[in-house]
Amino acid sequence: MKPDAPSPRTQIRRKPQRGHYDFATIAAIVDAAQICQIAFNEGGSVHCLPTACWRVGNHLYIHGASNSRLTRTLSGSDCSVCIAHLDGLVLARSAFHHSMNFRSVVIYGRFIAVDDPEEKKTVLAAFVEHISPGRSALVRPASTAEVAGTAVLRLSLDEAAAKIRNWGVDDDAEDLDIPVWAGVVPLQVVAGTAIPEAGCAEMAKPAHRFPQTAEYESAP
Amino acid sequence: MKPDAPSPRTQIRRKPQRGHYDFATIAAIVDAAQICQIAFNEGGSVHCLPTACWRVGNHLYIHGASNSRLTRTLSGSDCSVCIAHLDGLVLARSAFHHSMNFRSVVIYGRFIAVDDPEEKKTVLAAFVEHISPGRSALVRPASTAEVAGTAVLRLSLDEAAAKIRNWGVDDDAEDLDIPVWAGVVPLQVVAGTAIPEAGCAEMAKPAHRFPQTAEYESAP
Repeated sequence: MKPDAPSPRTQIRRKPQRGHYDFATIAAIVDAAQICQIAFNEGGSVHCLPTACWRVGNHLYIHGASNSRLTRTLSGSDCSVCIAHLDGLVLARSAFHHSMNFRSVVIYGRFIAVDDPEEKKTVLAAFVEHISPGRSALVRPASTAEVAGTAVLRLSLDEAAAKIRNWGVDDDAEDLDIPVWAGVVPLQVVAGTAIPEAGCAEMAKPAHRFPQTAEYESAP
Repeated sequence: MKPDAPSPRTQIRRKPQRGHYDFATIAAIVDAAQICQIAFNEGGSVHCLPTACWRVGNHLYIHGASNSRLTRTLSGSDCSVCIAHLDGLVLARSAFHHSMNFRSVVIYGRFIAVDDPEEKKTVLAAFVEHISPGRSALVRPASTAEVAGTAVLRLSLDEAAAKIRNWGVDDDAEDLDIPVWAGVVPLQVVAGTAIPEAGCAEMAKPAHRFPQTAEYESAP
């Protein structure tokens, strides 16, 4: 049996069959992301800003300059974070039934600043590992001043919901004979040819986690 | 000379050299998107939800079921919309100078419902064209009932800002001799092998606009 939504505001009301509330599903979608979008209120406006993110355990982490608006504001106010991966174009025989395959997570809560310098160093190294596995041991670690100038914030994944569509076309029965290609065009993020800095062309290329592909199921 | 920000809240304060306020730059980033994230307040919470989007002229369009929370709420309240494309991993010799290449747009304003059925049909056809050029003439158009059950909303692009990073590594001079590969791993979204519905395998495959690649400049 699927777990229930952790709160009324995470309950998927629109197409609830696409909702998932188990940690493994939520964590996998978060782990496939390098960036998230954060909604918050500041200065009388609602804002939606993108920023880099990574996961350690039950928390989503972000970072930024200690004096930036984003990190200052988020420590003191509720927010909502969205991660969305577009996995495919669902091309139906009718305009109305066109859709998209996707995996998304929405998280509610309040970021808490990570203040301890050693803990900051550990989670910042995890960020480098998230971007390029094995790399944190190869690069110059952050200095004390760099760590002090960087705000690191974490948000619990306790109040989160995932939504997934990963199947084919849902055309009406009476449209099935329309003579147009119908199906799914899968999309994925892939790495192109790495562009080295001067002096690096002969060095071993870095690891990364691309291409990233999504699971495709043949039925809802 | 670059145009100024259209409002105080669109002024890029963090790394202002990455800010762009001209329509062509903003429109190109919007046109490269199939989904956006929308921040809005409802029921005492701030929310961040993903939804499909497309552009016609000076407006961003979204759609949804007429009775959905998103479309009902957005017609009556201010929001912020974010589109972000991750274009590359910037791998530095120091952990601190790791970065990402990206193109993002943030839009502020209030969605307005498109009520006229003929106008709705026109902009919904533009949505199909955005996803698959040439397709709107091949599929069954939306029926009167389908159009009536679909809310279409538009948001002016007048109050918007773009932010772009599309260059190499900004390492400190004293780190340049660290013996680790440094450079950019470009990322792009590509289409995989199309998955036809039953009976469509022999038909002409649909058009789409993938791979999508970003411009890379060698200097800031």
